[in-house]
Amino acid sequence: MFENKERTELSSLGEFGLIDKIKEEFPLMNPSSMVGIGDDGAVLDPGGKYLVLSTDLLLESIHFDLTYMPLKHLGYKSTIVNLSDIIAMNTIPEQITVSIGISNRFSLEAIEEFYKGIKLACDKYKIDLIGGDTSTSEKGMVISITSMGYGSKDEIIYRSGAKLNDLICVSGDLGAAYLGLQLLEREKKIFLENPEIQPDFENKDYLIERQLKPEARKDIIEILRKEKIKPNSMIDISDGLSSEILHITKASNMGCKIYEEKLPIDSLTAQTAMEFNLDPTVCALNGGEDYELLFTVGIEYFEQLKMIPEISIIGHICPKEEGCSLISRANNQYELKAQGWKNFSN
Amino acid sequence: MFENKERTELSSLGEFGLIDKIKEEFPLMNPSSMVGIGDDGAVLDPGGKYLVLSTDLLLESIHFDLTYMPLKHLGYKSTIVNLSDIIAMNTIPEQITVSIGISNRFSLEAIEEFYKGIKLACDKYKIDLIGGDTSTSEKGMVISITSMGYGSKDEIIYRSGAKLNDLICVSGDLGAAYLGLQLLEREKKIFLENPEIQPDFENKDYLIERQLKPEARKDIIEILRKEKIKPNSMIDISDGLSSEILHITKASNMGCKIYEEKLPIDSLTAQTAMEFNLDPTVCALNGGEDYELLFTVGIEYFEQLKMIPEISIIGHICPKEEGCSLISRANNQYELKAQGWKNFSN
Repeated sequence: MFENKERTELSSLGEFGLIDKIKEEFPLMNPSSMVGIGDDGAVLDPGGKYLVLSTDLLLESIHFDLTYMPLKHLGYKSTIVNLSDIIAMNTIPEQITVSIGISNRFSLEAIEEFYKGIKLACDKYKIDLIGGDTSTSEKGMVISITSMGYGSKDEIIYRSGAKLNDLICVSGDLGAAYLGLQLLEREKKIFLENPEIQPDFENKDYLIERQLKPEARKDIIEILRKEKIKPNSMIDISDGLSSEILHITKASNMGCKIYEEKLPIDSLTAQTAMEFNLDPTVCALNGGEDYELLFTVGIEYFEQLKMIPEISIIGHICPKEEGCSLISRANNQYELKAQGWKNFSN
Repeated sequence: MFENKERTELSSLGEFGLIDKIKEEFPLMNPSSMVGIGDDGAVLDPGGKYLVLSTDLLLESIHFDLTYMPLKHLGYKSTIVNLSDIIAMNTIPEQITVSIGISNRFSLEAIEEFYKGIKLACDKYKIDLIGGDTSTSEKGMVISITSMGYGSKDEIIYRSGAKLNDLICVSGDLGAAYLGLQLLEREKKIFLENPEIQPDFENKDYLIERQLKPEARKDIIEILRKEKIKPNSMIDISDGLSSEILHITKASNMGCKIYEEKLPIDSLTAQTAMEFNLDPTVCALNGGEDYELLFTVGIEYFEQLKMIPEISIIGHICPKEEGCSLISRANNQYELKAQGWKNFSN
């Protein structure tokens, strides 16, 4: 169709390159559009509370693999992943829409399993399913989820708010979901070679669960509110810590220092990384799919934050000129690079 | 995965059957969720104006065919189709999100064409693109569009509001988009058999345009507001007049009478239908993709409505017990059936 024109491969641009191009072409016009493309969610002003909206498109074989992802888990995880974006704006999600495209290899019972997973997430996070679309697909399953949350103008936290000397904090622990995926991929390979062999996940439940049934950290938002700690910037970790802190520093026009020894890594994650000949730090930095919250707060909250077991202080914001670096245990400095999963690279 | 369970084919349930099942399982919990599944859009209450939200999932080969649908038109039409749902709630759309999944057969230039179409629709209808998601797909293009509009509580019009003796009105004319599709399918077939032959759409521009570049009837909403005519129920015609009036009567617990002689059918539509050995009335009733507005209003507006050239009065609402029927030119009565495009039937 475009034979006569030059052809630019999408892979040469990358997902963020494409998004930047789109953003440029679509300046906002309506007074109700507060914030558009470029954060975890868009922000709308209908006159009362602000509405935060986020949307994800998930495709079989690209984002999920039904050979080891039961449909119920898929429904749960798809919902959680999207709610996590709303939470990462410091707002409480209240609604989702779910659209699916399914081929005739799926029975009604299979689709019910999928919706059972969504229902479980909706009940746990008090979310209403308010709409969607269902459609046949030629091949493969397609899921599109949009979620909405509400917050006052002052409550909403953007990626762009990080201030000089802010503490960089992260909830929970990192890298486990990535290792869960490695385990599942390994067992899939063994299974394909010899279907008689049953999967061996002994003692690895935590990693498998982090991959198949992650949670969105609504509890962290609630803890911070209770403690009256107001972060200056926030994002959720979907593509890996490195990628996300670079989003914050870029949007805030700052640099950062992250300390390897401060990275929260579960001992099972560390041990399993070794088994796979992987560096646990690399898993924590680039693994992705942890859906933990990454945020920056003023140093005046240092003492208070230290007392919250679910939150780790892993570094601080520095001037842009100093760049974004990881300080290793041996006190060497490495430039942080986003090596998370790239959309158009394969 | 579900071998041990009974298998119910989705085709035995149909799209609406599946949606009903989902709706049952997800009762609304949050006070901000005013209306969920079951109308053109969901309605949310963030404390100021009500927000109406609608979402569509479009899959290549199922909803669109890139062999005759240029990407720019596809971008335009995908946007319009979704805006039409917001307008059909009597609200003015202001934002959309667009998510796409594309395989590496698409170049950046191709995707730019697609976004150019979206931009054209956004500029024409004063819409902000506020977000979305971009992703690789294994095969085929996937589009998910969500749009948002705002209206006061009293402005929003539902499917369920039709009252006894209401006049049934429709904007524009019907059946043209369906015949445009027939023309495109015919030319595609000829082209596949002999690529030397150029498509012959002489004098059929209107039908082709109705199929490839439909419009959402925001102008009708504006006319009705100016005339201070407030419909009691409203829906847009995506699956065909029959299907849509049955949605209104079912939701409103009413019946209806539609008069064949009153159906607005363009003379080119009628003539082209004959060429295809199709009944123009059947095209108007079941063709779909017209994106005209179908609404019911109190009879007190009869004289006023007669004066609006863009609106046709095609029938009236009767008691549920009288059923839903078409009165033919020969004064025979036929039961109206939804024969529009069925999602799971193939």
